[in-house]
Amino acid sequence: MRMPSPFVPCAIALAASALVSGVMATPSAAPARMTQADIIKAAAPSDWRRLDPDNTVVMEVQGKPVIIELAPRFAPRHVANIKTLTREGYYTGSAIVRVQDNYVTQWADPADEEKEKDKLKPLGTALASLPAEFSIAYKGLPLTRFTDPDGWAPVSGFVDGMPVAADPRTNKAWLAHCYGTVGAARSTKPDSSNGTSLYAINGQGPRQLDLNITVVGRVVKGMEVLSSLPRGPGPMGFYDKPEQYVPITRARLLADMPADERPAIEVLRTDTSTWRQLVEASRHAIGGWAVRSALHSNICNRSVPTRDIPSASQQP
Amino acid sequence: MRMPSPFVPCAIALAASALVSGVMATPSAAPARMTQADIIKAAAPSDWRRLDPDNTVVMEVQGKPVIIELAPRFAPRHVANIKTLTREGYYTGSAIVRVQDNYVTQWADPADEEKEKDKLKPLGTALASLPAEFSIAYKGLPLTRFTDPDGWAPVSGFVDGMPVAADPRTNKAWLAHCYGTVGAARSTKPDSSNGTSLYAINGQGPRQLDLNITVVGRVVKGMEVLSSLPRGPGPMGFYDKPEQYVPITRARLLADMPADERPAIEVLRTDTSTWRQLVEASRHAIGGWAVRSALHSNICNRSVPTRDIPSASQQP
Repeated sequence: MRMPSPFVPCAIALAASALVSGVMATPSAAPARMTQADIIKAAAPSDWRRLDPDNTVVMEVQGKPVIIELAPRFAPRHVANIKTLTREGYYTGSAIVRVQDNYVTQWADPADEEKEKDKLKPLGTALASLPAEFSIAYKGLPLTRFTDPDGWAPVSGFVDGMPVAADPRTNKAWLAHCYGTVGAARSTKPDSSNGTSLYAINGQGPRQLDLNITVVGRVVKGMEVLSSLPRGPGPMGFYDKPEQYVPITRARLLADMPADERPAIEVLRTDTSTWRQLVEASRHAIGGWAVRSALHSNICNRSVPTRDIPSASQQP
Repeated sequence: MRMPSPFVPCAIALAASALVSGVMATPSAAPARMTQADIIKAAAPSDWRRLDPDNTVVMEVQGKPVIIELAPRFAPRHVANIKTLTREGYYTGSAIVRVQDNYVTQWADPADEEKEKDKLKPLGTALASLPAEFSIAYKGLPLTRFTDPDGWAPVSGFVDGMPVAADPRTNKAWLAHCYGTVGAARSTKPDSSNGTSLYAINGQGPRQLDLNITVVGRVVKGMEVLSSLPRGPGPMGFYDKPEQYVPITRARLLADMPADERPAIEVLRTDTSTWRQLVEASRHAIGGWAVRSALHSNICNRSVPTRDIPSASQQP
């Protein structure tokens, strides 16, 4: 079996790109000796966290869950609106209307796409208009910083498990457009997003979108459901016939799901020394297959591992 | 219609990621004024080139063409072997055996995956063993250089329409792992690839693979066929049941195809001022939607536009 990867299977549910290189957060003098899989295996229980029930949306697409963690720290108004839209059933029965290869998978109210104004889903108590939330203050942000140059921004790292870029000169920090990043689609006006149409990045991170649109979170698990859909034949990857739309059969806030239906996963914390070790290890050729260490990575080249909640801890 | 993109449809068959930012090759003092679509529209006929019939493989997957340009300059031995394998029918009837999300789509002889030695496809006159071809000399390479820092390598740019990284200190240059890059899968030994199993990158460019494996070319068109396949449920995205394999129903060298079956596309040359303009334009917010210029890009963030051959030039 020939492979373009040195990595061996492991019981932990690694996201695919957890298997690619990263950047050291705290450079160490000696190269790391443990493989990424070994570091994850050796992680302490406290290195893992549960999903925040109040800020996680679980969508069902083609019978499979797509788990999205929202980022209230970065886009509080949008996140509040998205939670309202979720709770009031807006996304249930909406659909994926656009899949542009190596760019975005986007969902919306099909009636909005078809310009059928009389069939538009009601917004309920959600707001139709919100301010743009492109960035927040950098100062004071608990950033686990990457030290290799990002190129797109002077500073980069992870906050709350999400890839973040920042510019200390302007005191701005923002969620970066990496694979799986979820944003709120907008039209020409910067403040024209309200969360009724969202997109997830399905290819190389289009970082030029950073600071141009409101990012609301990221897909923690299930991105492959959105990335493996047929590409839309229309301009910019829009599906050009309503029958091509892929229904979102249900969307619920994790907090509103019965306990036995909740996805039983944990996410590795990114404010831990385990995460820093993992990032550092990813810069080195460790484990036999690779012959050359990149000694470099970046925030879009790393993804945050998840695992099934160990069965012992599921017991009351 | 809300969009995470400022770009409007245009008649030219732009690859999806031709719509994302790039890096200036020749910085200009004033920001570019033309949109990328306008620059492509204004390109001269001589800015476009035909596919090289002797170094292009056309695979058919699910009835759709996947067009791969080979890179004889970078991996002459592998490319020669892949051409022999193609001409002698090795890939026809082989299959996609692995799709790992945000990593690779990989194809091979299914019997090799299933360890059915008696059913292995014959190699014919192709070689079973080849030297590793991880890099070539940098000196003298006709590189259209990008000036923004790449991070993964001191020098980066395009050669023969392909993304290339280089290190002048070691006099090495190599094809970079970007979206659509095609490489020759190997096992633990660096010289264990022979082209019988190939992979294409289907997500964020895993640049840590650079200099660790032989890259043989890139998917010029049809990458969405490979990227939208179901992800494999097995470890590292391998399909775990033979019935999941996606057949490659046919693979031919472009030169061996009847004229009326050849894909009638042209590729924008990357050694032109039009390409440099396009790359520079991608660094700027132009055209109304974006409010902020990234003033940065990198080789994996750009893809090379293709277009249908204008009908006039198809006439004898």
